[in-house]
Amino acid sequence: MPPSLLTPLAAGLPQTVPFVGPEAIERRLGRPFRARLGANESGFGPSPKVLAAIADAAGDSWKYGDPDVFDLRRAVGRHHGVPADNVTIGEGIDGLLGHCVRLFAGQGGTVVTSIGGYPTMNYHIIGFGAQLHAVPYRNDRADLEALLAAAQATAANIVYLANPDNPMAGWWDADTVTAFVDALPPTTLLLLDEAYGELAPPGALPPIDINRPNVLRLRTFSKAYGMAGVRCGYAIGNASLIAPFDRVRNHFGVSSLAQAAALAALADQAFLDIVVARTIAARHRVSAMASAHGLNPLPSATNFVTVDCGRHAAFAKSVLEALADRGVFIRKPMAPGLDRCVRITVGPEAMLDILEAELPAALAAARAMGVP
Amino acid sequence: MPPSLLTPLAAGLPQTVPFVGPEAIERRLGRPFRARLGANESGFGPSPKVLAAIADAAGDSWKYGDPDVFDLRRAVGRHHGVPADNVTIGEGIDGLLGHCVRLFAGQGGTVVTSIGGYPTMNYHIIGFGAQLHAVPYRNDRADLEALLAAAQATAANIVYLANPDNPMAGWWDADTVTAFVDALPPTTLLLLDEAYGELAPPGALPPIDINRPNVLRLRTFSKAYGMAGVRCGYAIGNASLIAPFDRVRNHFGVSSLAQAAALAALADQAFLDIVVARTIAARHRVSAMASAHGLNPLPSATNFVTVDCGRHAAFAKSVLEALADRGVFIRKPMAPGLDRCVRITVGPEAMLDILEAELPAALAAARAMGVP
Repeated sequence: MPPSLLTPLAAGLPQTVPFVGPEAIERRLGRPFRARLGANESGFGPSPKVLAAIADAAGDSWKYGDPDVFDLRRAVGRHHGVPADNVTIGEGIDGLLGHCVRLFAGQGGTVVTSIGGYPTMNYHIIGFGAQLHAVPYRNDRADLEALLAAAQATAANIVYLANPDNPMAGWWDADTVTAFVDALPPTTLLLLDEAYGELAPPGALPPIDINRPNVLRLRTFSKAYGMAGVRCGYAIGNASLIAPFDRVRNHFGVSSLAQAAALAALADQAFLDIVVARTIAARHRVSAMASAHGLNPLPSATNFVTVDCGRHAAFAKSVLEALADRGVFIRKPMAPGLDRCVRITVGPEAMLDILEAELPAALAAARAMGVP
Repeated sequence: MPPSLLTPLAAGLPQTVPFVGPEAIERRLGRPFRARLGANESGFGPSPKVLAAIADAAGDSWKYGDPDVFDLRRAVGRHHGVPADNVTIGEGIDGLLGHCVRLFAGQGGTVVTSIGGYPTMNYHIIGFGAQLHAVPYRNDRADLEALLAAAQATAANIVYLANPDNPMAGWWDADTVTAFVDALPPTTLLLLDEAYGELAPPGALPPIDINRPNVLRLRTFSKAYGMAGVRCGYAIGNASLIAPFDRVRNHFGVSSLAQAAALAALADQAFLDIVVARTIAARHRVSAMASAHGLNPLPSATNFVTVDCGRHAAFAKSVLEALADRGVFIRKPMAPGLDRCVRITVGPEAMLDILEAELPAALAAARAMGVP
């Protein structure tokens, strides 16, 4: 046995990964899913203008992308009414979350989040050697009082809050979030993950205030913009928080394709509006479908519907597996209390038709298994 | 002044970035470069099959890329005659280097490299709080004896070696590199950066031996494959070194576009052969051009020619600036001893025509400045 070359921190990290990809399940099952409704992707796809931009940019893909991501930072800034220096671009929110833990918590730091919250955030917290302090959801929402109390009690470096929420799909309104920010210790950074922000109802997102010295807003092109496979997200905040990303990010990491695609996506807000409308309609359809079969869909401000299956976790797991057997990929929360639910991404009519066709038999199969 | 939210490590990191992008220079000059010959990109572009693969994949870019990068790991493994479990894929070598420092050195670890070696490696070493120990080049090549001595003296966690070399373009032959590996302490990991490997002469690359417990080979689609803007690179090594990447990498970080593009690139080795031949011809042309103007081109195993300008660093800097004034982007090494050189990326005929047309006047201008 050769000596381990890993650092003590790396040697102690778990082998687990944040998410098993649907492709791995497909390889195990030996066939592709017919309806991909598990990864909170947008089956409505990216704008046709994005596709054209990618095809256009491909010919120049022998060049490194602009390491300053200048044009896109400026466009994002314009879109949100802030200067480009208050914006940093990353390879999706996942990568930005890692940079945040590294910059603002680090080894021995403390990060507060919710039990059952975004697994990739936990992955980064543990991966960078920070202490993870998680509080339970309350009534299927992030418990802001408990998060605040934990932040105060632990003198947390970071509090993570997804609004709208993943995996529970709900949201807090802007005033409540703003009051939460106001109450945080000034030495605690709020990472406000708004991956689903474009899909939230009016009044859910606080106005962007770059003068706040301890809030970073995280947005992505992976969800409503339909570009999960492109890898582009961004953070907005006070310049004192944004500038340090240049000390740790991969300067050439945002591909030229992603930069071109994101510019085209931002410029086509009419397409986004259509996707938002279709997503909302699809949410209603999935919710109605769940209700019609005796399940309880929770309110959603996202592109997925979290459905309370009304029994123990084992039953929800059976529903998920019975759907997978029938070619429908969904996911489910795993944390105690949330694990009675499944999480169904919405999508275009054709995919929901498959879900609708398979759901009765899947539920019957799950119910027949006799799990509690 | 609000309290700094940065960790002590992050607060102490320098503001400098590894490379200023040509786009930033263009913005400063107020016009685009006519010949982009500075970033060691391949102006021969990616294979037409890569362009087709990107266009094909764009429609599915609403899906996250396979987090296991299964097909590409298998294809890379087949290409090199190793199992897929001995391959990890990343967003270019830059990102993989960061993971390596994080996994194998970390805060307080020691990394040995060459003074004037790859700046992005230094950026990661410093960024993760490791100690950087750098030894001078010797006769314009990485000094293997000095690297070995430093690794032994410092009980280094990592030694970084680029073969072929950047920024000096030269190489060590396979036997010499293998002897170097054999002599390393078993507790020292060799990061063998072979970004330019496909462009090296026969006999420069040691055979890949995945049984070696302390060597990682790094390859990229950014150079000979002409896909710098796509972001895809890989590491090959013993499974004990490869598996830990899953503990720190961004599992959804390799875009679906990059996965499709890299698969197509690997499958089109005929195109790669053409690029290699054209690159070698272009190296000869640039070398001849330099010689014809009284400069001294160094031998190259890469897609660039490092040219000894024969005087002090200030003169080489003047040559670079005079070329930039004339629309030609090149770069230069900055370390003492290497800084008498400029580094000219090779490219297609039309770009070299511009270089050839502008070089005499640029040299005259530089010589007229009277710098030593």
